[in-house]
Amino acid sequence: MKVIIVGGVAGGASCAARLRRVDEKAEIVLVERGPYVSYANCGLPYHIGGVIEQESSLLVATEQLFRAVFTVDCRTRCEVTGISPKTKTVEIKNHATGEVTTEKYDKLVLSPGAAPIRPPLPGIDLPGIFSVRTVPDAKAIREWLDRGASELAEEQASSGFQALDKPKRAVVVGGGYIGLEMAENLAHRGLEVTIVEMLDQVMAPLDPECARLVARHLEQNGVRLALGDAVAGFRQNANGALEVHTKSGTVHPADVVILAIGVRPETELAKAAGLEVGQRGGIRVDEQMRTSVPDIFAVGDAVEVKDFVTGEWSLIPLAGPANRQGRIAADVIAGRDARFRGTQGTSVLGLFGATVAMTGANEKALTRLGDSDHEKMYLFPNSHAGYYPGAKTLVLKVIFRKSDGRLLGAQALGRDGVEKRIDALAMAIQMGATVYDLEEAELCYAPQFGSAKDPVNFAGMAPADVLRGDMPLVHWGSLGNGFLLDVRSPQEVATEGVPGAVNIPLPAIRANLAKLPRDREILVICRSAVRAYYATRILLQNGFNARNISGGMLSRSMLVPT
Amino acid sequence: MKVIIVGGVAGGASCAARLRRVDEKAEIVLVERGPYVSYANCGLPYHIGGVIEQESSLLVATEQLFRAVFTVDCRTRCEVTGISPKTKTVEIKNHATGEVTTEKYDKLVLSPGAAPIRPPLPGIDLPGIFSVRTVPDAKAIREWLDRGASELAEEQASSGFQALDKPKRAVVVGGGYIGLEMAENLAHRGLEVTIVEMLDQVMAPLDPECARLVARHLEQNGVRLALGDAVAGFRQNANGALEVHTKSGTVHPADVVILAIGVRPETELAKAAGLEVGQRGGIRVDEQMRTSVPDIFAVGDAVEVKDFVTGEWSLIPLAGPANRQGRIAADVIAGRDARFRGTQGTSVLGLFGATVAMTGANEKALTRLGDSDHEKMYLFPNSHAGYYPGAKTLVLKVIFRKSDGRLLGAQALGRDGVEKRIDALAMAIQMGATVYDLEEAELCYAPQFGSAKDPVNFAGMAPADVLRGDMPLVHWGSLGNGFLLDVRSPQEVATEGVPGAVNIPLPAIRANLAKLPRDREILVICRSAVRAYYATRILLQNGFNARNISGGMLSRSMLVPT
Repeated sequence: MKVIIVGGVAGGASCAARLRRVDEKAEIVLVERGPYVSYANCGLPYHIGGVIEQESSLLVATEQLFRAVFTVDCRTRCEVTGISPKTKTVEIKNHATGEVTTEKYDKLVLSPGAAPIRPPLPGIDLPGIFSVRTVPDAKAIREWLDRGASELAEEQASSGFQALDKPKRAVVVGGGYIGLEMAENLAHRGLEVTIVEMLDQVMAPLDPECARLVARHLEQNGVRLALGDAVAGFRQNANGALEVHTKSGTVHPADVVILAIGVRPETELAKAAGLEVGQRGGIRVDEQMRTSVPDIFAVGDAVEVKDFVTGEWSLIPLAGPANRQGRIAADVIAGRDARFRGTQGTSVLGLFGATVAMTGANEKALTRLGDSDHEKMYLFPNSHAGYYPGAKTLVLKVIFRKSDGRLLGAQALGRDGVEKRIDALAMAIQMGATVYDLEEAELCYAPQFGSAKDPVNFAGMAPADVLRGDMPLVHWGSLGNGFLLDVRSPQEVATEGVPGAVNIPLPAIRANLAKLPRDREILVICRSAVRAYYATRILLQNGFNARNISGGMLSRSMLVPT
Repeated sequence: MKVIIVGGVAGGASCAARLRRVDEKAEIVLVERGPYVSYANCGLPYHIGGVIEQESSLLVATEQLFRAVFTVDCRTRCEVTGISPKTKTVEIKNHATGEVTTEKYDKLVLSPGAAPIRPPLPGIDLPGIFSVRTVPDAKAIREWLDRGASELAEEQASSGFQALDKPKRAVVVGGGYIGLEMAENLAHRGLEVTIVEMLDQVMAPLDPECARLVARHLEQNGVRLALGDAVAGFRQNANGALEVHTKSGTVHPADVVILAIGVRPETELAKAAGLEVGQRGGIRVDEQMRTSVPDIFAVGDAVEVKDFVTGEWSLIPLAGPANRQGRIAADVIAGRDARFRGTQGTSVLGLFGATVAMTGANEKALTRLGDSDHEKMYLFPNSHAGYYPGAKTLVLKVIFRKSDGRLLGAQALGRDGVEKRIDALAMAIQMGATVYDLEEAELCYAPQFGSAKDPVNFAGMAPADVLRGDMPLVHWGSLGNGFLLDVRSPQEVATEGVPGAVNIPLPAIRANLAKLPRDREILVICRSAVRAYYATRILLQNGFNARNISGGMLSRSMLVPT
């Protein structure tokens, strides 16, 4: 059996290595357009930033390993330029020699990945404008950033432009994962960074109120944000510097521009071969990674996958799923029964000392799908026991099914202990856990690591209180005509009040029930919604109609734009 | 309804607070022997060590909160000295006034906790010998450690002993959680620390080979260990210093002694009232925290709980389960249907920059129970992607059911990312996950946080390889008469070899198959068992009988005493 794998890196390389382990006799050919069979593309921004110093560190699995250990016929700098499903052949062009050959396959695995989007904007090919996909891309950016003033001066002089200093102003186009990682790494190198993002939020997989916190954090760290504005074009001005012109008419000067608008599945080859491509633009595969054409499989960023929670087809360009898909394709080719279960979109971003992570469905997606059987909560637990030094507030948004309590998704932000909560919640979602299960979760507790009631427990307890009817909930932005009751201390209220709210501190509630209306819904406010929960319980049990405003003042700062 | 809760801290205080939230009208009396209704007992070692500077930090939930917000009648410095189930009354002694009263209850909740074991050894009441249970205990230890030479001198002079320096030598009796935390904190204060432990390992809930790594880590941090030796008694010598005499005849000089031998459920009151006590010595309760006597509940360290994995009755003195039990008792008293699901024994310890964590069943327990349907594996993944700076090796022992792959338990050690993997695995165990589920787990990946194949995925993939028959396994210590094949590089073998092993580096295996025996089992060795896995696959598919030695050289150092 001869298996040709098109594209290395995560999906293709995993497939090749796994296939050898499950089939010692197969002939495996790995065709990779670039110079490396596999490299750590998730590390590229950190290599550019200098955190990962050596380029060689990125070359995790070498061609030598693939040849010697996995006996894979590696064809780097070669590209598959055509597929003929009828003859089961591919056309391979060797970019080193220019030679074009035709080879037969018994099984073909496509792992072409997804290419950075480069819209056909005026000036997009000017020097100093880069995408971040490959090791050579990173090298080019590093060289551009490293060039001393003298070199630049020489080059600029010869090109007729005035001398330039070493690059110090960067514009990053796109506020997704790569864009934000690049922003951090460029700032780390001392550049002034501006992010231009077409959407009115960064990190599209986050819900907007969570993304707002990320935006504030970026700004606090000196990154300028131009949200809700799209690039119209690029120019080079008289002194050689770049200018990024936006549709709103703003001009952002730049010595370097990073295009991180997003990625698009590379499907030209697949389309030309007649493979079905889905509505999202990715190669359509079944749960065994088979495309619509017999004996052709596809894995990684180029394929559409089923969202584990919503069941929607989606594009999830992440390394973890790509690796698992590569393994599954290999197993299936070797005659085993392996199935991809879909993806939860679990992801994490480190950003100027903070961490942002998420898993499962977000509110935007559920709303878009017309799902009304979900509720959300905002929680602000400590990263570890408050009595042990260094505890930080976590921001946790939990989304769950109203009808049965099933956990649907979670988003978390903070300075410590963020991704471990999302990992536990990701495992919970995978296993179909409900918020009632989270209540009973037994996680690691010592004061420097967590709390006797971990944030993951709170992510169960608070929603369960809602579902059991113990804590009717309301959200900022949909308060209606309720009576606003603020149960914080007068000192806290003096610092930041809510217009129209009556202040009765929690310990004084029972003594002041007569002051509260019995004909209106009472909406209870505190800092993080814990004291408001206590107050709500008192009010409900005393016959009042009360609701807790989820997340209190802390979520207000997310949900009510200032 | 009048509910009397005996004992505050985790279980009792949680019960009181929860009960108020679900029953606004109940009369709730909280009787606590000590001065505080609730305090962070898990923080005591860190307060003694000075990490938590202020004693007030430990007083998380104050009496003021309980009175004002939860309208709980707090009786601190009061002790329940007798229970009469027939009359449904308790006898309460007020230690401040000496007054003894009798009060009726409708429901009684016992949360007496567990007391540090103080065996009746000669000299155990000498000054300078302390247990660590309460805030006053911590205060006494701090004062003892803080006393300057002059104060000591004065006191010693008046007592007829010679002048003493400030305490500088500590003996900790017991190598469990509290013992190790105390050892670290005393070392943090500059004391020389010796741990005397009766068992031949520290941290009894760990399997011995994992505990060996903890012991080495302690020794590397200057803590002396006297394992497998029990204290025979204590003496004060002529110059006033303490001596700890052991059964082996060793004498450990000490200026301070910490008794951390373990805890014993406080069941005197329960026994006197005729409540059933189990074989493990804890109050027996049902899954709704009811004792054997009507209207009496019990929660926390004093009760026996069902082990979630093995179904055995066990004593788990941990704050997390105590909190959950307190909530459940409150819910049941308020007429709700809540049930405790048992405990997994999830726990974590920070120790000189390292972390040790575990969840579920250990091998010792399964073996003791005669369970033969389990297998174990040792894994040594990176804490995060190896190409990003700062990755550390994790030691991960995974225990799973041979028949169906269900995850039974895990133990992990390392410097980074330890407890988050145990949290994910704890959630997996709670939800009944198999190693096949772990293979497909989708966790947070960015290079500073994890790997595209997270250690949790490896904890599924490697066992699944075993269960699918792809990787027959063998362990150091039970190698039998196999042919030892070391597939590491000659350089690695030169550094540390295995007697009798033949070295053929992995890339040379296929070319040297003729040198390998077809009539013997080939046991394959490498550093961490990854290359050995690749080699095992090659050998098996070439008709050899091969097994991978789990964990390779890295587990050898745990399993083969040097």
